[in-house]
Amino acid sequence: MRDASLEFGEREKQGVYDAIYKRRDVRGQFLPDPIPDALLLKLLDAAHHTGSVGFMQPWSFIIIRSDEVKRRVKAIFEEANEAASKVFEGEKRQIYSRLKLQGIMEAPLNVCFTCDTTRHGPNVLGRHTIPETDVYSTVCAVQNFWLAARAEGIGVGWVSIFEPAKLRQVLGIPSHVIPVAYLCVGYVSEFAPQPELESAGWLARLPLEDLIFYEQWGKKTVE
Amino acid sequence: MRDASLEFGEREKQGVYDAIYKRRDVRGQFLPDPIPDALLLKLLDAAHHTGSVGFMQPWSFIIIRSDEVKRRVKAIFEEANEAASKVFEGEKRQIYSRLKLQGIMEAPLNVCFTCDTTRHGPNVLGRHTIPETDVYSTVCAVQNFWLAARAEGIGVGWVSIFEPAKLRQVLGIPSHVIPVAYLCVGYVSEFAPQPELESAGWLARLPLEDLIFYEQWGKKTVE
Repeated sequence: MRDASLEFGEREKQGVYDAIYKRRDVRGQFLPDPIPDALLLKLLDAAHHTGSVGFMQPWSFIIIRSDEVKRRVKAIFEEANEAASKVFEGEKRQIYSRLKLQGIMEAPLNVCFTCDTTRHGPNVLGRHTIPETDVYSTVCAVQNFWLAARAEGIGVGWVSIFEPAKLRQVLGIPSHVIPVAYLCVGYVSEFAPQPELESAGWLARLPLEDLIFYEQWGKKTVE
Repeated sequence: MRDASLEFGEREKQGVYDAIYKRRDVRGQFLPDPIPDALLLKLLDAAHHTGSVGFMQPWSFIIIRSDEVKRRVKAIFEEANEAASKVFEGEKRQIYSRLKLQGIMEAPLNVCFTCDTTRHGPNVLGRHTIPETDVYSTVCAVQNFWLAARAEGIGVGWVSIFEPAKLRQVLGIPSHVIPVAYLCVGYVSEFAPQPELESAGWLARLPLEDLIFYEQWGKKTVE
């Protein structure tokens, strides 16, 4: 017997889909307006209430507001980006050179989501066969933070162009802790109607039906 | 200048937080009621609109309804669970033995989220220094699916107690594709008020303030 109180109202449900469809990876539209401490805590509490493998809660959050730390992070981004841009050729390299790929200095807040692989000791329920599930849980927390931020009108951009070893060094992260995501966070002038890489012609959205199989990999029809 | 239209209404915003806080990892409360095809497509479309590194969209979805396939998946769960349970001792082993850790047969639908590490060729924007970002994107898609399902009154349970190589074999997944998440999906009799591992006394919720650092790992105060 299903309990009708499980259901969300139409507007609450719409809020969830709006957060998912209107969320953007923000790089160029950050405003300098500070994010109130209470609101930041609200977003981090939402992240902290993510489900995690074996209730491990392996995440920690490093809040960065100092321009000096940001500058050091930006320097390691630039180093990595220099190398990364060279793998693309022709039209792709031209598009790449026009793309803004981070808002480290402009965003009033940067947040690094880390995963402590040793939290609660070596044995974590559900992590025996797939040890990476601790990182997966941390990534789920990133997504919850991202969606809650979108609902609050706050943009988030995930910067992944770093050598993780260098990011560890800049932020003093010990070797048993993985820096999973480096996020630029702030109010924005707008959320673009489409992902930037889609509107810039980098790649097209794949048709959903091409991504669905039934019972077995590669099987396109229901029996 | 911030655009007021960026803001969600109070109820839409509440919907996002409700989905985050009321989402559960469901194992024991599945009902047999089938999920309409249109609703399943709506949830998969929400997952497909997750942001991904370099707009890579590395995910595919294997929909499993056949009892025969489910039985084979359940068999490899049982094999792995037998080994996993033995690492816990004393009170933990007692709690472990009482926990229901999967709803593979009871859930009308199982969905495997996979990540094709080769999609769009070797060079993906933003994946140069951290190749695991393709899997991270797939995990974000899992989280979006999970939240959208919660908003629709549908429960999801992520089963991670398998040898991935055996799951690959059962579902015919090629070696360049990673089976990231195996989800049991269905309507439920209830969503528990707390995570089951919390109410069973497996582990406690960590205080949020213990998880926040400023500027550097380990630094507890703002300067």
